[in-house]
Amino acid sequence: MEMSVDIRNKFRNTAKMTALSYDNWQIAKARGLVDLFVDTDRVGHSLPGTETKFVNMSSYSYLGLNRHAAIVQGSIDALLDEAITGLAIAPTRMRPALARSAEQGLSNLFDATCVIGLSCSVMTSALLPLVSSGHLVDGLPRVTVFDRHAHFCMEMVKPICADEAPVLVAPHNDIDFLEDICKREDRVAYVADGAYSLGGTTILRDLLYLQDKYGLFLWFDDSHSLSVLGANGEGFVRSQLGEINPLTVISASLNKGFGCSGGVAMLHKGFDTSFFNTTNGGPLTWSQSLTTASLGSIVASIGVHRDGELSELQQNLQRNITVFDEAYPTGLAGGELPIRMVTTGNAETAMDISQRLLKRGFYCAPVYFPITPRGKEGLRVMVRADHRPEDIVAFAEALTEEVGKDVF
Amino acid sequence: MEMSVDIRNKFRNTAKMTALSYDNWQIAKARGLVDLFVDTDRVGHSLPGTETKFVNMSSYSYLGLNRHAAIVQGSIDALLDEAITGLAIAPTRMRPALARSAEQGLSNLFDATCVIGLSCSVMTSALLPLVSSGHLVDGLPRVTVFDRHAHFCMEMVKPICADEAPVLVAPHNDIDFLEDICKREDRVAYVADGAYSLGGTTILRDLLYLQDKYGLFLWFDDSHSLSVLGANGEGFVRSQLGEINPLTVISASLNKGFGCSGGVAMLHKGFDTSFFNTTNGGPLTWSQSLTTASLGSIVASIGVHRDGELSELQQNLQRNITVFDEAYPTGLAGGELPIRMVTTGNAETAMDISQRLLKRGFYCAPVYFPITPRGKEGLRVMVRADHRPEDIVAFAEALTEEVGKDVF
Repeated sequence: MEMSVDIRNKFRNTAKMTALSYDNWQIAKARGLVDLFVDTDRVGHSLPGTETKFVNMSSYSYLGLNRHAAIVQGSIDALLDEAITGLAIAPTRMRPALARSAEQGLSNLFDATCVIGLSCSVMTSALLPLVSSGHLVDGLPRVTVFDRHAHFCMEMVKPICADEAPVLVAPHNDIDFLEDICKREDRVAYVADGAYSLGGTTILRDLLYLQDKYGLFLWFDDSHSLSVLGANGEGFVRSQLGEINPLTVISASLNKGFGCSGGVAMLHKGFDTSFFNTTNGGPLTWSQSLTTASLGSIVASIGVHRDGELSELQQNLQRNITVFDEAYPTGLAGGELPIRMVTTGNAETAMDISQRLLKRGFYCAPVYFPITPRGKEGLRVMVRADHRPEDIVAFAEALTEEVGKDVF
Repeated sequence: MEMSVDIRNKFRNTAKMTALSYDNWQIAKARGLVDLFVDTDRVGHSLPGTETKFVNMSSYSYLGLNRHAAIVQGSIDALLDEAITGLAIAPTRMRPALARSAEQGLSNLFDATCVIGLSCSVMTSALLPLVSSGHLVDGLPRVTVFDRHAHFCMEMVKPICADEAPVLVAPHNDIDFLEDICKREDRVAYVADGAYSLGGTTILRDLLYLQDKYGLFLWFDDSHSLSVLGANGEGFVRSQLGEINPLTVISASLNKGFGCSGGVAMLHKGFDTSFFNTTNGGPLTWSQSLTTASLGSIVASIGVHRDGELSELQQNLQRNITVFDEAYPTGLAGGELPIRMVTTGNAETAMDISQRLLKRGFYCAPVYFPITPRGKEGLRVMVRADHRPEDIVAFAEALTEEVGKDVF
């Protein structure tokens, strides 16, 4: 081979990743903390064939919409109406009229040109390379800078982006690092989460300042705030923008707060989505699209977002977050987003505590490298609107007894 | 940037692809041949708000299972039972017990260790880099050779694979080219379709010979033959193997013949799937997993595959293929796989004919670069078990009148 070994593993190194993380997963599995198969009831889950029952403290269905009767019924009604699991043809050719209703409904709800896909990851793998190649704007490539904490679904696409433009990694939320690049390079894109999966948000105002000053393109994955924040559930980033401008894209999962499955990208209103309905749309065009059932639930969830119920559920969530923060204060206490980190600083300690919590009736996911940086291992708490406040208090008590107070 | 421009666009070049293919898509759109939104009834589709009705001659639901009452009902029953659209937690943490039933059911049906994912593309993006890094075998990288006609879902992953091992492209089904590489390199993997989306198959016997002689790793995407061929619907490649050996993986879509959504990978029986339930599983672990509705349909489709109905549907399909081949012989006539190409050799000609066929009540997708090589443009016919023979005959008559006899 003419290609030398040393230019590989620039973005991805399975051997190294395995060496650094594999044992943790195996230990977690041996302790019954990952790879679980569960039955579900109104309050939580159970392990089939055992007496184990637990409340899930690490589900990202922040408003409880995945159990919302009208949304589940939306799937059922669509299946009854259409009598087909899906059209079984590339979505670039044809999609059910229901897909248009879903896309137009989301566009109206979020006041943007919305495109839907099978998942946020699929959406990202389709669109992020077009950020690097420049085809979401003018077809000229952009140096693409990934925040070091950007989610795995963006991380995965780096080598593909790097075949279109130079790819760099920035320290988390480091505006000076980014501005230096903007000064040096004519055309830059920045790729980040809006709300991060370990809590905290992007530095939106600073980034908008750089966008204004240097023409910086901004890509935000705002999966963890969609439905949770904003009058229409439009999320952390979208709720702070007026119109979405041509240099900004927000992607988000419809599988978290929104209660369904799939992914959505919000683009500026002038964007011609027919560009995606070509080879350039990648997996959005040649891969599977959302099923009849998923489309039915999305249309139903748009309805829930449209009526007064969204605001009520958002208030229930904020109430439950306050209940948790008062019962077990952490470094993220007081924030409106529902993720709280309990840092233990050691993977086995996190797993010990998670295992003891499970015995007490609470599943709280241990997180460790590469989900957290090394030394920042711990437990990830995700508060939901459909948690019973008494369960949150009982969970906080269990945390206090098993961990002690958080030393944030 | 220290990286020079000339090493980019090794695998992907959006600017070039746009220049070569964008106009075709725009013309197809202007002619009403792509980006359609349709309603569905028992016989075919209609365009809402118009009088246009048509039979779909380009759907890959080869056995008609996407409309099978028991499979649609499988989704509905699962939603009624579970009362949740999905668990809303990373699948590496927990999945519904129904996911285990689906995975075990497929493993039994296909006599392999089966893993499921959100789509075949997602499965591919998760597992194919592990072929290159060697982690599906021994953790040592393999020179990864892609057949030039391997489907887009594999093509897309090339830059990711190339960050783990050298990536090469082989002429289609060129066994001599591949053997030369096997002679030169110690460790080689070959990535191909089992049954190709434009008709025809891989050269399985020759590849097994190379595997035997040189230890060649083989990855097949057999999406277009799953359910269509084999006593249990195990597909073109699987039906010709005894046990799947440790140097072979078959991936397939559950969205084509199988009638559902999702993807499946078949691995050898000794494979420890817990390896995927770590960071190494990529999107299989941190992205969305199959919904309650999808899992319910998969379990129901396994039931259809298990009872005598599969064989009856496969026979109906073969009857319909024969009806088409007799009424409109093409170069692929006589083959058991349901794809037939009508080559016109020019994108606009293909679109002209497709448009005239649509006016006569048949949707038959025009295909052009990059779906076909340039000069090989045409129409892709996909025969299904649930076509009415009289519709196939009428379609063949329309083809004859609009195209003339195929000049294969």
